[in-house]
Amino acid sequence: SGLVHVKNPHLDSMEEDVLYHLALGTKTHNLPAMFGDIKFVCVGGSPDRMRAFAQLMQRELGLAGDGEELADICAGSDRYAMYRTGPLLSVSHGMGIPSISIMLHELIKLLHHARCRDVTIIRMGTSGGLGVEAGSVVITDVAVDSSFRPRFEQVVLGDVVVRSTELDKDLAEELLACSKQIPDFPTLMGHTMCTYDFYEGQGRLDGALCSFSSEQKLEYLRRAYEAGVRNIEMESTAFAALCGLCGLRGES
Amino acid sequence: SGLVHVKNPHLDSMEEDVLYHLALGTKTHNLPAMFGDIKFVCVGGSPDRMRAFAQLMQRELGLAGDGEELADICAGSDRYAMYRTGPLLSVSHGMGIPSISIMLHELIKLLHHARCRDVTIIRMGTSGGLGVEAGSVVITDVAVDSSFRPRFEQVVLGDVVVRSTELDKDLAEELLACSKQIPDFPTLMGHTMCTYDFYEGQGRLDGALCSFSSEQKLEYLRRAYEAGVRNIEMESTAFAALCGLCGLRGES
Repeated sequence: SGLVHVKNPHLDSMEEDVLYHLALGTKTHNLPAMFGDIKFVCVGGSPDRMRAFAQLMQRELGLAGDGEELADICAGSDRYAMYRTGPLLSVSHGMGIPSISIMLHELIKLLHHARCRDVTIIRMGTSGGLGVEAGSVVITDVAVDSSFRPRFEQVVLGDVVVRSTELDKDLAEELLACSKQIPDFPTLMGHTMCTYDFYEGQGRLDGALCSFSSEQKLEYLRRAYEAGVRNIEMESTAFAALCGLCGLRGES
Repeated sequence: SGLVHVKNPHLDSMEEDVLYHLALGTKTHNLPAMFGDIKFVCVGGSPDRMRAFAQLMQRELGLAGDGEELADICAGSDRYAMYRTGPLLSVSHGMGIPSISIMLHELIKLLHHARCRDVTIIRMGTSGGLGVEAGSVVITDVAVDSSFRPRFEQVVLGDVVVRSTELDKDLAEELLACSKQIPDFPTLMGHTMCTYDFYEGQGRLDGALCSFSSEQKLEYLRRAYEAGVRNIEMESTAFAALCGLCGLRGES
């Protein structure tokens, strides 16, 4: 049917669904009218960049206006920012798995309540490249954890549940094909490693704590490269797991 | 000596330390002049609230100005917000362990470069109460994970390192004593449980995914209560571990 799935039997019996961190809700907002025709959602960490991206898309899509008039749909909350232009939503998610996870739970319920169909979601973000030319775009074929395994461990009531982190392969190929039409736009496909922190987890030597040598760092990054990792960031495994479970066509 | 410790032998040999996510650095800013006399740091998730808190403290401390003039010291970045009033810094950290961890690494380096002494750091935030009166303030004696263990698991180059999540007991007692001087201010001390997500991890029935029954949720929360947990949030274990290792007197 192309609808977005929520997998929660409790939702149907709720009189109202408040999307707390988006400052939206089923009683306070007409979600089908506001969002029913959304086909693309692009997400990224920084609110300023997601505003700039919505403005860029407004111009690229040839829509009326210069983008300066785009208002933050989640202005009632300072947790996330959301902009709409044409069939596209541009949403910020902050940094790290917990932060993107809250936003995605509420975004998925929003798309469900709005009865959106055939939605494609793409995460874009800065990441640390691994053995690739600086400035390259890495299209994720699969998101892996810090042990290079294609899995996301979600704790549910104190127990660990393991989830798949496969992304949409056709969408990845489409994006790669698009990139080839743009001159001087280095793009490749590879695994994306997702960590729970920026400093110790990614082998950086410049955090407040660092217990390893430069050689140990390089040895770890070399093993990651050999396992197929081409970039490192902090959200992809949770993004892949949640989109996959809820029937969103997702890429990162 | 009361100085803030960084535990990173590589830092001394770096020509410049850029605190990327705070948009500050050792070459671009005179950190000792800007921050050398800071004695208190208060952190919380929301940038708007941390601005409001700095304004409140400006008035409470009897400092000149009405607080409206307070400017975001990290205005060059939209990742975090930071305000200063008198000897106090008020800093936002976003949501979740990865987000607070990036901020704390860079804040700790900032306090180190600024040669601050005897700094007290307090995290304040909304949390879900467990068997306590709505509106109560819970002062954390120890932060625990989703299995109620007083530990924080940090991945370093793919390996798990277990860290203590003890907080400063004297500071906790001081805060509790202060609370008793305020009429109608329900305050108690207890364990704070820290989870990696807001919905499935905290037993909420209203996420996009929910695989458990209302009874299973209540059973988990009952076990948490019996283990001494009085509130649930998403940052305390990482906060306790980092502050403890770096010699910051910390409370949550």
